[in-house]
Amino acid sequence: MENVLKEITPKSVDYSQWYVDVIKKADMVDYAPIKGFMVIKPYGYRIWEFIQDAMNAEFRATGHENAYFPLLIPENLLLREAEHVEGFSPEVAWVTVGGGEVLAERLAVRPTSETIVGAMYARWIQSYRDLPVLMNQWSNVVRWEKATRPFLRTTEFLWQEGHTVHRTESEAEAETRQQLEIYRRVIEQELAIPVIAGRKSAGERFAGAIDTYTLEALMGDGRALQIATSHFLGQNFAKAFNIQFLDEDGVQKYGWTTSWGSSTRMIGGLIMVHGDDKGLRIPPRVAPLQVVIVPITRGSEGEQVLRYARELETRLKSRFRVRLDDRAEYTPGYKYNDWEMRGVPLRIEVGPRDVANQALVLARRDTGAKETVSRDRLEETVVNQLTAIQHNLFAQALQEQHRNRRSVTHYREVEKYGYRGLFDGDWCGRESCADTLKTETGMTIRCLPLDGPTIQTGCVVCGQLAVSHIVFARAY
Amino acid sequence: MENVLKEITPKSVDYSQWYVDVIKKADMVDYAPIKGFMVIKPYGYRIWEFIQDAMNAEFRATGHENAYFPLLIPENLLLREAEHVEGFSPEVAWVTVGGGEVLAERLAVRPTSETIVGAMYARWIQSYRDLPVLMNQWSNVVRWEKATRPFLRTTEFLWQEGHTVHRTESEAEAETRQQLEIYRRVIEQELAIPVIAGRKSAGERFAGAIDTYTLEALMGDGRALQIATSHFLGQNFAKAFNIQFLDEDGVQKYGWTTSWGSSTRMIGGLIMVHGDDKGLRIPPRVAPLQVVIVPITRGSEGEQVLRYARELETRLKSRFRVRLDDRAEYTPGYKYNDWEMRGVPLRIEVGPRDVANQALVLARRDTGAKETVSRDRLEETVVNQLTAIQHNLFAQALQEQHRNRRSVTHYREVEKYGYRGLFDGDWCGRESCADTLKTETGMTIRCLPLDGPTIQTGCVVCGQLAVSHIVFARAY
Repeated sequence: MENVLKEITPKSVDYSQWYVDVIKKADMVDYAPIKGFMVIKPYGYRIWEFIQDAMNAEFRATGHENAYFPLLIPENLLLREAEHVEGFSPEVAWVTVGGGEVLAERLAVRPTSETIVGAMYARWIQSYRDLPVLMNQWSNVVRWEKATRPFLRTTEFLWQEGHTVHRTESEAEAETRQQLEIYRRVIEQELAIPVIAGRKSAGERFAGAIDTYTLEALMGDGRALQIATSHFLGQNFAKAFNIQFLDEDGVQKYGWTTSWGSSTRMIGGLIMVHGDDKGLRIPPRVAPLQVVIVPITRGSEGEQVLRYARELETRLKSRFRVRLDDRAEYTPGYKYNDWEMRGVPLRIEVGPRDVANQALVLARRDTGAKETVSRDRLEETVVNQLTAIQHNLFAQALQEQHRNRRSVTHYREVEKYGYRGLFDGDWCGRESCADTLKTETGMTIRCLPLDGPTIQTGCVVCGQLAVSHIVFARAY
Repeated sequence: MENVLKEITPKSVDYSQWYVDVIKKADMVDYAPIKGFMVIKPYGYRIWEFIQDAMNAEFRATGHENAYFPLLIPENLLLREAEHVEGFSPEVAWVTVGGGEVLAERLAVRPTSETIVGAMYARWIQSYRDLPVLMNQWSNVVRWEKATRPFLRTTEFLWQEGHTVHRTESEAEAETRQQLEIYRRVIEQELAIPVIAGRKSAGERFAGAIDTYTLEALMGDGRALQIATSHFLGQNFAKAFNIQFLDEDGVQKYGWTTSWGSSTRMIGGLIMVHGDDKGLRIPPRVAPLQVVIVPITRGSEGEQVLRYARELETRLKSRFRVRLDDRAEYTPGYKYNDWEMRGVPLRIEVGPRDVANQALVLARRDTGAKETVSRDRLEETVVNQLTAIQHNLFAQALQEQHRNRRSVTHYREVEKYGYRGLFDGDWCGRESCADTLKTETGMTIRCLPLDGPTIQTGCVVCGQLAVSHIVFARAY
């Protein structure tokens, strides 16, 4: 038993190593033969599928449709929007040879798809009657990154990217905000990760955007993670790609566009927010396995216990994601640890005494609490406990966020908190002060929070007149 | 009305042009800025999602789990299995530059993933207890094709590829056949496309396989389409990638592997099998829209008709994929044609008389038949008709297949059938005869059918002793 536990480095000793240990031990991911690439194993991928289901339901309910745009983008398209190309070119992987021949024009493996989508939208949109266009795609993207970490920052990752065109500026702005709220709902309700919603400062915006909205979450080591973003692109891309429509008044006008994305990075956030020194803790709503049944089968009553356990499994199977761990080669203790490492929310233990009493022991992964439950009350107890775990994980994470969010009047105060956590303060709006903050503390402006406090004092860097309230932190 | 119809070239005039017209008019796909690439629009992509759902259900029920492997494969991995590399290298797109630097080793954009999956499996599998490994991935692949056609053959396409490892040869063979049967079920039951299942001849096998099983379908122009394949790879890839396990008897052994794939090509098959001169006909089970309601709102009773139509929509919405077409700028006649072009299985027409009679007119896309239905019987009639359409489309396609499948004793007989259709005959097993067949008729051996007739005569080319019964045809 202790053998197993030792394999995960404690958070307090080395957080980065803890993270790597957990994802390997939980069998979520492995490193690919090329540096910076990952293989997402079934146990990790299943979480992604639950996220996809939740997002798709929200996207469809708001009129969005899924589509698929090409992986490869001709260089000339990528170059059309000046800020965009400046932001993304350094990270691009280029295809230069195809079918045995050097290509006349090299092709970018998409780092994001605004350019190719924009080129198609320009072709499809003619009249105001064609608007809004509300599309989303689930795809892989490649960004050549120097420092990578599974789920959090990898050269290739999976994501969804929404791309919309609207008739008016206000409709496009409303879309940008609506999608941010969808992300907030899915991330808070499904992944149980509390987020802070806000606007990015100019220096932190998406390349080519007028406004970037973001959700920021606090990780277990006190750093922030940008977990989803939604961009109001104004008419920048419409002008670069000539997305025009004939309006009802007979005037030819440029469309107003948005884009918004969320990725497998969310799974990295889930691990860091909920994991503990025993391994993962997965919120029940996105858990590949919600209940594991471990039979204690030593001795003469082994067969009887196994039969009893199988009956429980059969009963639960139609409503929950359940597995009976009947591996003969492992002890119950080993199995307890194994499934704790993998973060299964509920464990059912059954031994000879439980069979005799027509009962079972239910153990919660989040709190470690155990209770004996009568067999008659099996389903209702499981439902109630899974709900309780989902809520408790969110509540714990929210408490953690509150405990580590502090107001400061000068950025030097962050030193006494070990540069950990989220800091509220005021800002004069000058990028030079943002630069100072970064150089001196390694912190960046995470966002200008939407629901944050109002301006109280002067800029946390220069002390001069503040124009915005900001949340700043070290970030992934 | 005739204006709209004229936009689709009749099948009999130019089948290729008919195909292109249909997919454009039905708004399923568009050409991307790079030759050979396509954009799958929402109406096409939704069909893909239904196929994914059906396949995923079958895969899961048989113990397979989804995972994700990297897009880019180092050249050295691709070179490991000799036949495989020979088959795929000419079609590979190469990434040679990443992050502004020329890469030390060029990276293939995956044309298929046996190599990268094999490299990972070698790392994950140690003991017989780790077997079988049953994984599937949904992904994009790139194969540099010279002649392309949307859905049927494109440089990039979407697919699923399953990769499994087994302890014994017979288990791997059983898996190969099981997956073929899954494909057959989904393609016949969901897409209503009847298929012929068989083994590929040596010359037509997947590069690196011991045996390739295939499903072949007959298209509307008399050509065959290979619509899904399942490969028994023996120990070829296990040896190339060193996938070994310690068996229960203490001996280190190579695993037996399989791979199997199906792609967006299936949507091309659906279009060609079911489409007619009015456009698409989509089987109800995979139709993005199953029912469209067209209100006839001219005159003073327009508002009343629209209200009545909305009530019908509300009633149907919870059980069917339904849309009320209340666009004011188009006539009912235009709408009828528009939705026929898009292949919506059922159309409901409602006018003032229907409101008065508490009835509606139901028109079937597959047969053109119309019936007046009492409002009380709405749901049950829609269910029955959708089921009837699903069955009728399959029955029609099966009849078409039977009508165009002919037995011959010599390959020259195909000339009198205009080289159209599927031909049954015998074969001596020599590749030289397969080559003659191809040169002389443009036909290839589609398969050695699993349920086909037995050998009757001599080889259709050389007349000598036959060893196999074959189905041959011109193919996509």
